[in-house]
Amino acid sequence: MSNVKARLLEMVKEDLADIETALKENLTPQLDLVTRVSGHILFAGGKRLRPLLMVLCARLCGCDREDVKSFSVIMEYLHAATLLHDDLVDEAAVRRGKPAAHCRFGNSTAVLVGDFLLARSLSIAAGVGCIEIVKIMADITEKMSQGEIQQLIGKGRLDLSEEEYMEVIRRKTAVLIQGGCRVGAIFANASPVKEQALAAYGLHLGLAFQMADDLLDYTADTAVLGKTVGADLREGKMTLPLIYALKKADGADAGLMRNIIENRDFTVDDFSRLLCLMKKYGGMDYTRRQAAGHIATAKNALAVFSPCESKNILLQVAEFVLSREF
Amino acid sequence: MSNVKARLLEMVKEDLADIETALKENLTPQLDLVTRVSGHILFAGGKRLRPLLMVLCARLCGCDREDVKSFSVIMEYLHAATLLHDDLVDEAAVRRGKPAAHCRFGNSTAVLVGDFLLARSLSIAAGVGCIEIVKIMADITEKMSQGEIQQLIGKGRLDLSEEEYMEVIRRKTAVLIQGGCRVGAIFANASPVKEQALAAYGLHLGLAFQMADDLLDYTADTAVLGKTVGADLREGKMTLPLIYALKKADGADAGLMRNIIENRDFTVDDFSRLLCLMKKYGGMDYTRRQAAGHIATAKNALAVFSPCESKNILLQVAEFVLSREF
Repeated sequence: MSNVKARLLEMVKEDLADIETALKENLTPQLDLVTRVSGHILFAGGKRLRPLLMVLCARLCGCDREDVKSFSVIMEYLHAATLLHDDLVDEAAVRRGKPAAHCRFGNSTAVLVGDFLLARSLSIAAGVGCIEIVKIMADITEKMSQGEIQQLIGKGRLDLSEEEYMEVIRRKTAVLIQGGCRVGAIFANASPVKEQALAAYGLHLGLAFQMADDLLDYTADTAVLGKTVGADLREGKMTLPLIYALKKADGADAGLMRNIIENRDFTVDDFSRLLCLMKKYGGMDYTRRQAAGHIATAKNALAVFSPCESKNILLQVAEFVLSREF
Repeated sequence: MSNVKARLLEMVKEDLADIETALKENLTPQLDLVTRVSGHILFAGGKRLRPLLMVLCARLCGCDREDVKSFSVIMEYLHAATLLHDDLVDEAAVRRGKPAAHCRFGNSTAVLVGDFLLARSLSIAAGVGCIEIVKIMADITEKMSQGEIQQLIGKGRLDLSEEEYMEVIRRKTAVLIQGGCRVGAIFANASPVKEQALAAYGLHLGLAFQMADDLLDYTADTAVLGKTVGADLREGKMTLPLIYALKKADGADAGLMRNIIENRDFTVDDFSRLLCLMKKYGGMDYTRRQAAGHIATAKNALAVFSPCESKNILLQVAEFVLSREF
């Protein structure tokens, strides 16, 4: 584990423990199968980044209510719901080092338990009685499904542009992280300036987070990643390192890259060759630079807040996203 | 078309036309695929029963706002979302006489467009700014997914009890119809007494509606039904006519019935034999009687309202549910 990560985990240890308890307590499903499938996706080593951000943002805005931790589960339930559906859509076999839920329990169960978790998230959100929060949650859900649909349509399209990629990751990943930060601010009755600052922080953090994820799909070990390296390529999912390298590659190299991308049954050698070409044309470096730019923007957005522990932790979270095993 | 249906359709012609327009106007998806898949499920001859009930209930409570028709699309979007997911879960091949969306567009698209429609419904609901309505919508969604999961778990269980069946159909069907009626009342600022009366009307109407549907699966022509007769049996879905007949059947007949039920590849002859036994042991009659009882309860619930056109139409809707091609 990196130093950044270890230090960060120590700082939020208590919050994470409380969130973990709340995740169990707020599920209340009457059905054993729901408990098992929810448990499979919810209690398999998730980072709890989204609820944690909500708690930290609320605290940064002066909220000392203990129930914010219990309330923050709405972000993790919504996240888990989308994971269940997205893994099915992507035909992903592995998630967090375990068989994906749709493989283990079947497509039907994954769809229905995903629906249940989504509904549970919105039910708890509505329970707080703040219509603004419910609007944000519904809007996040709408945008995420649109992002996933856009990604599905874009699969195998070698001409996917960087702009289209950014639009997809904004919707499918960043709006949820942004929403968590905003809801935290609203829960704390923060001023519009603070709410917008935290929304900006969340948006850019989310963009960088997904870029890092997409880069890891090419550079990590399968063991570290908890899922198969090269999965995006196998699904025909065009991500920034590849989009950029393909745009920059010259005739012969571009042709070679296209051949490998178009052959879904590529060999290990093909994959290594593609990796070399992606590096040669700066795909990894460019993605790293772009992610770093968004992290800088995210950190700058926090300038409206005076120094304090919560602010410090949010800055560390931003550092952590950038320090993931690139 | 039956007389009841023709008379009813004439009475609500204008409302139905306005609801149809609103269904198109409120979709606003930026993606062509969403439009096509939503259109496939939304504009394929649905009865619009759920939004219509909301409009009628609001009017019965004195609401003359024209925007109730536009708002009522939340019930149809939520309904369409669950149809997309449920057809996939049930592996249904046909819906309203057309190939089911998951067969035509693939499982992934059906899952994601279902998520989109669900989110759209909740977004519009939140847009009205009434937290009570959002709570009901989220609660409906949660209960429906639980009902579907319960039904999935119960598949192939020959010992499913009438009580368990009632619990499933309450959750998967009746709460949505009940919710539409309640939301109509709340939209109209109705008194708690009126709101509860309409909730009771919707609940019992919904229960009878599903019982009628389950009976039709045994008694209708495929052409009339718009989907394959005997589909429930083929999926191992135990419904009331079968549950009751199996409970009443004596030793030899019960054994024969069990054999047919357990063989998913039953022949046309097997199916006819099963139908005869179900009739012999009163499965159809019992289901009809139970449905009629719920329709009577639904109609009685309207007693708190003075006679007027909206009340009359709601009574006719109840009649219609009972008059469907049993």
